[in-house]
Amino acid sequence: MDILFTHRILRLRDFLNEKEIQSILISNNLNIFYLTGFYGKDSNSVLLFTGNDIYLLVSFIYSEQAKKSVDNKKINIVCCSNDKYGKIAEILGNYNLKTVGIEGDNISFNGFCRLEKNLKSKNRKLIDISGAVEKLRLIKDRHEVSKIKGACKVTDRVFKNIIDSGASKVNNLSEIELALKIEELLVKNGSEGKSFDIIVAYGRNSSMPHHLPQNIKSKDGLILVDFGCSYNNYCSDMTRTIFKGNRKKNEKFKKIYDIVLEAQQLAIGNCREGINCAQMDMKVRKFICSKGYGENFVHGLGHGVGLEVHEEPKINAESKMVLKENMVITIEPGVYIEDFGGVRIEDMVMVGKDKCELLYDSTKEFIILD
Amino acid sequence: MDILFTHRILRLRDFLNEKEIQSILISNNLNIFYLTGFYGKDSNSVLLFTGNDIYLLVSFIYSEQAKKSVDNKKINIVCCSNDKYGKIAEILGNYNLKTVGIEGDNISFNGFCRLEKNLKSKNRKLIDISGAVEKLRLIKDRHEVSKIKGACKVTDRVFKNIIDSGASKVNNLSEIELALKIEELLVKNGSEGKSFDIIVAYGRNSSMPHHLPQNIKSKDGLILVDFGCSYNNYCSDMTRTIFKGNRKKNEKFKKIYDIVLEAQQLAIGNCREGINCAQMDMKVRKFICSKGYGENFVHGLGHGVGLEVHEEPKINAESKMVLKENMVITIEPGVYIEDFGGVRIEDMVMVGKDKCELLYDSTKEFIILD
Repeated sequence: MDILFTHRILRLRDFLNEKEIQSILISNNLNIFYLTGFYGKDSNSVLLFTGNDIYLLVSFIYSEQAKKSVDNKKINIVCCSNDKYGKIAEILGNYNLKTVGIEGDNISFNGFCRLEKNLKSKNRKLIDISGAVEKLRLIKDRHEVSKIKGACKVTDRVFKNIIDSGASKVNNLSEIELALKIEELLVKNGSEGKSFDIIVAYGRNSSMPHHLPQNIKSKDGLILVDFGCSYNNYCSDMTRTIFKGNRKKNEKFKKIYDIVLEAQQLAIGNCREGINCAQMDMKVRKFICSKGYGENFVHGLGHGVGLEVHEEPKINAESKMVLKENMVITIEPGVYIEDFGGVRIEDMVMVGKDKCELLYDSTKEFIILD
Repeated sequence: MDILFTHRILRLRDFLNEKEIQSILISNNLNIFYLTGFYGKDSNSVLLFTGNDIYLLVSFIYSEQAKKSVDNKKINIVCCSNDKYGKIAEILGNYNLKTVGIEGDNISFNGFCRLEKNLKSKNRKLIDISGAVEKLRLIKDRHEVSKIKGACKVTDRVFKNIIDSGASKVNNLSEIELALKIEELLVKNGSEGKSFDIIVAYGRNSSMPHHLPQNIKSKDGLILVDFGCSYNNYCSDMTRTIFKGNRKKNEKFKKIYDIVLEAQQLAIGNCREGINCAQMDMKVRKFICSKGYGENFVHGLGHGVGLEVHEEPKINAESKMVLKENMVITIEPGVYIEDFGGVRIEDMVMVGKDKCELLYDSTKEFIILD
């Protein structure tokens, strides 16, 4: 594991050398995990690279955890109380460096002001290096691919379990209870738990893409489940829309379902290294538009998945990114009709040279639970 | 409900008038919920007060949800795509106002830069008003108190359920599984679910205050559970340390337990309007120190609870706050000994004029499960 982190740190150093930045301050906890193995969720930790040295600043609450999870002997773990910015200034005082890179997307405006004030006397310049570590994280290494595949396998098993348990089971569960049932299954199948707040939307509620589960029982019609797990801190993300009741009652949904499924297959067929993310989104959008539902596809086609369930690259009309081998993304077109319902089908894929690898086995047939 | 939000907005306007700020931009989603009833978790929504008008800017994904949850007709719901800052500048263009308040703790440094760039041509000044809404949220109104008490009641019931189910039940559950069991019970007892990542720490793991549950079964000794629920979006937070095995094996823990319990009772006895938070923390710290464990109480004495599980006031040595009636806080001293274990006892209380009201009924006896 030590080699893994050393390698990632070397890649970051290459980037910094290129930009001629001598010291940087990483404040995103997942970026710190990626580079050190220590994951202090909401811990306000900071990883400071300066000259050839590395310091991990953690509060006392996290010191034992940090010591136990960081193997790399080159990383100095420093416990510090509330005056984090003072400590950073003190450490930097030992180095004659003029520029300090910061994660401007991650540091708050007030945090920036405090840091600037602490460094002022030394005439140091703060430079935004947002996305530097995220850029490394775009391309998944072998270690990461195996974790992501593990997360997807758990997710597949859980979806199978839901459809196998049938309508009688779902009938008794409110949206909140089904979400919890899914979470329980995610753990039972070997993950740490959900990777985001699980969406379970029955009937018309499914027309809100980010619906929060309510305490209501299911009726006939749509059941949209959007869930994923965290497996060794790597995420999965999957959506399936299934149905309840007899075939006749669900006929009106099948038309929408078939359009969304065809749109998704179109995207998967086009997904490979070299494809422009915005073009991929537009192609699917045009297709859905040609079927008369252009206004009902209200979100982007997909997003990267890794340590975060939503990370780069974004697959939407504004994206400037081009897909590369070993990126992992979702493909999730949807059609949402207010007071009617919504259908979304979401898979995760790994981008390859000439095609993409589907990371789920779960069926996308039009399923009516019985 | 409309009256409730109108009243909160009036209080915010009073604050702004006092500071002579004519327009503000609220970017914290919970603050937006507090003022409007719309909770778009991670939605990047913005609430803009300008002159006498109010605008809620949400992305298309959240538009239906926003329309359904905002009753106040004075709030204009505006859907906007990615160019949020451009839209804000466009709206502000209709008002001849020179200062715009922003939540500098909540807006990222890069977000600030984008906003500033968009407003530049109008020569508008951005002013940090961080904490303005949080200041209103410090004192809980009746509506909030009833929700918080509801959350605490659910939490009490779940803890009772854990101890009633006894050692045989816990024996079969890994830390992760017990955490999930607790979450399931939180939902079954009427809440929306956990309010934060539940901590279950067996044995030595309990010496890390923010231990993440692992896939390990319990042995004799310590079981620390730190959990809470969300009830109508209001949080609870409770910690209990219980034990497994025979009394003799747990004798060494009882000494620590009694010190922590006495420390907690000392704090509860001192908790009332007018007390300085730092003094309260110091009093408890001195007591634990006098017992020889000063270095082992590695975190603050407590924190506010409301829409967030950790909010103001902080009860620690650096705090400048003074307690006021209807603040809701935790009191949670702990003693953590590396490679031995940790004990923490945490209650929630509501501050009153002359004393505080304990919001939990759960026992704090030294419990050995059998």
